[in-house]
Amino acid sequence: MMTGRLLGLGVGPGDPELITLKALRLLQAAPVVAYFVAKAKHHAGHGGNAFGIIEQHLGASQERLPLVYPVTTEKLEPPLTYEGVISDFYDTAAEQVAGHLEAGRDVAVICEGDPFFYGSYMYLHDRLAERYPAEVVPGVCSMLGSAAVLGVPLVYRNQSLSVLSGVLPEDELKQRLAAADAAVVMKLGRNFDKVRRVLRELGRDGGAHYVERATMREQRIVPLDEVDPMASPYFSMVVIPGQRWRG
Amino acid sequence: MMTGRLLGLGVGPGDPELITLKALRLLQAAPVVAYFVAKAKHHAGHGGNAFGIIEQHLGASQERLPLVYPVTTEKLEPPLTYEGVISDFYDTAAEQVAGHLEAGRDVAVICEGDPFFYGSYMYLHDRLAERYPAEVVPGVCSMLGSAAVLGVPLVYRNQSLSVLSGVLPEDELKQRLAAADAAVVMKLGRNFDKVRRVLRELGRDGGAHYVERATMREQRIVPLDEVDPMASPYFSMVVIPGQRWRG
Repeated sequence: MMTGRLLGLGVGPGDPELITLKALRLLQAAPVVAYFVAKAKHHAGHGGNAFGIIEQHLGASQERLPLVYPVTTEKLEPPLTYEGVISDFYDTAAEQVAGHLEAGRDVAVICEGDPFFYGSYMYLHDRLAERYPAEVVPGVCSMLGSAAVLGVPLVYRNQSLSVLSGVLPEDELKQRLAAADAAVVMKLGRNFDKVRRVLRELGRDGGAHYVERATMREQRIVPLDEVDPMASPYFSMVVIPGQRWRG
Repeated sequence: MMTGRLLGLGVGPGDPELITLKALRLLQAAPVVAYFVAKAKHHAGHGGNAFGIIEQHLGASQERLPLVYPVTTEKLEPPLTYEGVISDFYDTAAEQVAGHLEAGRDVAVICEGDPFFYGSYMYLHDRLAERYPAEVVPGVCSMLGSAAVLGVPLVYRNQSLSVLSGVLPEDELKQRLAAADAAVVMKLGRNFDKVRRVLRELGRDGGAHYVERATMREQRIVPLDEVDPMASPYFSMVVIPGQRWRG
């Protein structure tokens, strides 16, 4: 018997209309639809962000396979580490998916944004793509969703673009932002205050734009100076466009 | 009378199925569809890459508005400069589009990849978005299309991603690549040899992947060592994924 195919489907940044024709076609044809979800959301009966984007497109006969994160940001007692717990979780999730693939069923793993751009799907891909046929459908990433809703052209001509995580240490963040033509800082959340401070020190706060949950219903665009650093969600972003070229 | 809306529609990296539902809906509803095209292609009766992606979706009643580049890479006689000629061209193109907007007609400008990620649409947006209502629909960019067809996860966790142009001077390219966790080098063409040399000097050629025209019918994936530097097209890319995180 043939094994099933592993499908990593980018479903876009939040607006359900920002899925591609290809991802939608493969999604609707897949007997099993897998998605990552936080424990609290799962227990509350929700499917998580990516699942919410595509739920309307699913048929009753398609099996849902939630992959439930065992931890989010809580403190763990030694000898447990976040890395260890999460690595074990990905091992287990990969075997759940592999069970379906072995039985000849395609598994569509839905990914917010793009599967290979900071996506959890990558950890399944790294574990399974050598054992099973895999296909990845790229998606609209949150970075480009953010630039679009902000209405700011991101990067011109031969400018360089630096995509940075707000989790970086302050020194490294400063160094990388100082060298950047255009930049995007993702994963803000509790890191927002640090990121804004660095931008101010570099004199780049004036050209920086802030958006929460770009393209989603709950989208909020706020001037950088007015952001409450205690309330900035993980799904927020600072976009620093490259210098406008008259062209 | 109401003016029309300026629509910047990302149509994805080449595979016609990688357009989003939203871009397709707005495209099909637009009375005027504008696209940039090289002079030689236009005179040969072709519409260029982006137009080829969406041509199948157009109706007979939709007006086609080609915006024909006056120059590509040919030498210009002084006092003409590439920058001057191209800036005048964008001024003229913007006024062509504005003519339709003034008459109350929406104009969909189609953009290969994403409109704000190195797209020519940006030069229309910068000229028109303050005068007319504008909406940008983000698209799947060529960078993520390339990672998907190569099957390589691009950037993990808190890694930084550097998006670079192959046009950069060799020193700057080397410096930026040396500092990068993950990187993508776009706009190769005649710059390929320089880019490969820099990657070899940095010892990063082993982990680098090369692809031409990702997701298009003519897509080619070639080992970096086997690429003919004289034959590398502009629409080719080198992808250097971030170090795999066991996760």
